[in-house]
Amino acid sequence: MRLSTGGTASASGLGPEVVHTLSRETIRPGADHSGVTRDPFVVVGGDAAGLSAASKCRREDPDREVIVFERGQWVSYAHCGMPYYVEGEVDDLLSLTTLGPEEIADRGIDLRRGHEVTSVDTARQTVTVAGPRETFEQSYDDLLLATGARATAPVDGVERDGVFTLHHMDDAAALRAFLDPAESVDAAAVGNGYTDDAYVQQYADREPPTTAAVVGGGYVGVETVEALAAHDLEIHLFQRGDRLLPPFGEPVGDAVAATLRDHDVHLHLGCEVTALADGDESTRVEHTDGETTVDMAVVGVGVRPNAELASAAGVATSTSGAVGVDDYGRTNAPDVYAAGDCAVAEHVVTGRRTWVPLGLTANRAGRAVGATVGGDPTPTGGVAGTAVVKAFELECGRTGVLDHETAREAGFDPVTETVTAGSRSGYYPGNAETTVTLCGDRDTGRLLGGSVVGTDRAAVRIDTVATALTGGLTVAELERTDLAYAPPFSPVWDPVLVAAKVLSSEIED
Amino acid sequence: MRLSTGGTASASGLGPEVVHTLSRETIRPGADHSGVTRDPFVVVGGDAAGLSAASKCRREDPDREVIVFERGQWVSYAHCGMPYYVEGEVDDLLSLTTLGPEEIADRGIDLRRGHEVTSVDTARQTVTVAGPRETFEQSYDDLLLATGARATAPVDGVERDGVFTLHHMDDAAALRAFLDPAESVDAAAVGNGYTDDAYVQQYADREPPTTAAVVGGGYVGVETVEALAAHDLEIHLFQRGDRLLPPFGEPVGDAVAATLRDHDVHLHLGCEVTALADGDESTRVEHTDGETTVDMAVVGVGVRPNAELASAAGVATSTSGAVGVDDYGRTNAPDVYAAGDCAVAEHVVTGRRTWVPLGLTANRAGRAVGATVGGDPTPTGGVAGTAVVKAFELECGRTGVLDHETAREAGFDPVTETVTAGSRSGYYPGNAETTVTLCGDRDTGRLLGGSVVGTDRAAVRIDTVATALTGGLTVAELERTDLAYAPPFSPVWDPVLVAAKVLSSEIED
Repeated sequence: MRLSTGGTASASGLGPEVVHTLSRETIRPGADHSGVTRDPFVVVGGDAAGLSAASKCRREDPDREVIVFERGQWVSYAHCGMPYYVEGEVDDLLSLTTLGPEEIADRGIDLRRGHEVTSVDTARQTVTVAGPRETFEQSYDDLLLATGARATAPVDGVERDGVFTLHHMDDAAALRAFLDPAESVDAAAVGNGYTDDAYVQQYADREPPTTAAVVGGGYVGVETVEALAAHDLEIHLFQRGDRLLPPFGEPVGDAVAATLRDHDVHLHLGCEVTALADGDESTRVEHTDGETTVDMAVVGVGVRPNAELASAAGVATSTSGAVGVDDYGRTNAPDVYAAGDCAVAEHVVTGRRTWVPLGLTANRAGRAVGATVGGDPTPTGGVAGTAVVKAFELECGRTGVLDHETAREAGFDPVTETVTAGSRSGYYPGNAETTVTLCGDRDTGRLLGGSVVGTDRAAVRIDTVATALTGGLTVAELERTDLAYAPPFSPVWDPVLVAAKVLSSEIED
Repeated sequence: MRLSTGGTASASGLGPEVVHTLSRETIRPGADHSGVTRDPFVVVGGDAAGLSAASKCRREDPDREVIVFERGQWVSYAHCGMPYYVEGEVDDLLSLTTLGPEEIADRGIDLRRGHEVTSVDTARQTVTVAGPRETFEQSYDDLLLATGARATAPVDGVERDGVFTLHHMDDAAALRAFLDPAESVDAAAVGNGYTDDAYVQQYADREPPTTAAVVGGGYVGVETVEALAAHDLEIHLFQRGDRLLPPFGEPVGDAVAATLRDHDVHLHLGCEVTALADGDESTRVEHTDGETTVDMAVVGVGVRPNAELASAAGVATSTSGAVGVDDYGRTNAPDVYAAGDCAVAEHVVTGRRTWVPLGLTANRAGRAVGATVGGDPTPTGGVAGTAVVKAFELECGRTGVLDHETAREAGFDPVTETVTAGSRSGYYPGNAETTVTLCGDRDTGRLLGGSVVGTDRAAVRIDTVATALTGGLTVAELERTDLAYAPPFSPVWDPVLVAAKVLSSEIED
């Protein structure tokens, strides 16, 4: 899963009951190299973007005071690892965290967990913080909004017992405890100092589920299906549209559907879930094809940027609802940056500001903002929407623009070809069919995007296409790229080259 | 192994005893679309470049007469697959051939096996061909020299019994028969209609070897070691220099040396073999550290382009000895092309004509010449020297310019960094150390080359670097490329990105 979200502050959170305002003078000011005292670099959100920024700023400018406010208890955790913890491929929940509070302190970062930033005053350069004991103001010289995204829940009944969204570490802990109660202590699902133990324990104490519904056929849904299947559940996957993994395109979606069916998953395509309701110690999934009763459900139908804090402060957002930023992550408010799943980024193909919440994007943009704030102006880099997902033995990747409507809106005349070729020399053991789709612009020949699906090292091959997008290559130039060949790893013509060859001649005609 | 060589004609071959000259009139001329009769497209050499050209020309222009002269019996075979046949990973020798004579005939190609082209008259546009029964002249309208390369043998005693070069299919057949006589019939080592059966059978009839020397620590040597190790031989690998796989650089060479030692291979680094001499039913390897007696030896110390036919005809060659060509594979002689392991190609980093005999290069250049001759002028594409090699569980890749001397000669100020990073998220099973080296130009920041070594999908990652070279990316641009991230496939920061990050900050400083 590519989300990096460590969603923290939102304007809809707890209202401050007691506002205890500290004057600027009461906060120890840092001093820059010129000896002028400065207010700290304040970061809202303690996950990928926020802690990358904090760490990088401290490395660039070790004298700079950096404060990170995190609404929850979890910091610096790998959102994308949660399905694998639920599955049991990963045995220790804490292994999903990159940095513990001690390591963060060692970096000279003042991390405040359980502190929610409830408002920003961009004129006075202060934030209001609701802490565990008091609410106070904190002044800043630079501010980073790294508030992440959150799961959307457009289905009635998402809040009920036995229904999960798998968007927070506590959800992962609870789900693993539910599925695998005997192992849940070893798996550090409870008592680890972060988890909401009461929430998790209630699931550990129950009879494990034997049937499950997964609502949504995007990557959260697909990864969740794999995770649940490892616990031998009967699984029903509901997808409103006719295809799984829509951003990956038809060849990938069809291949994933076939693989899920091979693993005895009940696919309900073109079937919208309208409500999750109480059954008898179970959940009744009401959908457009009828009803299905299950022991548990996971809803993964979408995410939304946590941009309310920014909006309320008058920081401009884009049509996607994410915070608008320039190439350096700067918002329209002075000294206010945004990075990660709450912010837009420039798309390398369309050149437009796009909201693509991805883990690498968040880490990189956060790091760039930290460098900029620390005195080394650094662009955050573009996004190509590169994503990979595992569906049992199947590896899927996508990058760039595959959808013809999106391509046309960006001014291209898209043409797409799909090929299936071997992953290795045909005579070498382990050779497996690899399906590559490439989309190009008929007018200029430029490569616009691609997807890969297969069982043998297919996912990593999408990086070739993503790199070609960064280089602005034409399809013909990709076709002539000197990729690696050796029988155990690739045929003479790598599947990506075969696809480029076919699309290139289609474009030339 | 990356060589594509199907070495065929060489000027040093059999002299024509009877020259039976056919006049132009005696050869059925093709007719182009304008109705003008034309002499055929003649191809010298029936392997990767030659047959790719012949096939593509016939597809582009189905009326065109195409004749391929192949000195030997084997055509269209995967040179790079031979070590895996010897190893036993591949069970059927014929599976290494892509096209059989019937399929070639079905494409409308007039293939003449056992026909050696002994000279070219570029003024009269004819070639002299020594066939099985007679020697004759063949006129051409277009000529492609696809004569491949051959193994060099600078060591005395290479021709002796029990010593192999593993450069021809017959060598692979003989070696497999020697190592694995019980299986050699099943493995189609003899009696397949191509092999020199008498040569192979003499090895099948012997006691299998138990000790072996491999002379040369390049990829032929390394792949041969793996192949022999599968048959439980005691193996001595001799390398004149101090490092294995020199073009891959030190980090790869060191990792391969460690892996070979782990597999009980006796490494003799910095040790030159001076002669291979008769022992008692064995081979005595005389080297700068003494002598080692073994049951068999494989020599893989280098290759040389088969350019003598071209030179003798006055076709210009480069300092490497390979045939000089332009972007379309054209030599300095009218209507004479060269492609594959006998010809140079433009290096995508240095812009210079370079001799890099590689399988993909040969296939692509041949195909491009075929298209050009067939009426659709197509550039052959550049080379980056991208190569991958398997050494037991280790996957190694390299591309571009890694060597600082080469980089300086091309006008760059090279700087190199090496990092070791995880292949997957640290918590995900199967994560393995991956070492990436990148070389960049300090002046411009441009990426010049790279290498990768590791056990988990390391080889395929070199394609990211190769594609970045084609795109002319700077190291900083590579650092900001949107590569794929999902725990089972890559950490947030792919090892290639980690290396780019480190090198980029080194270049900026």
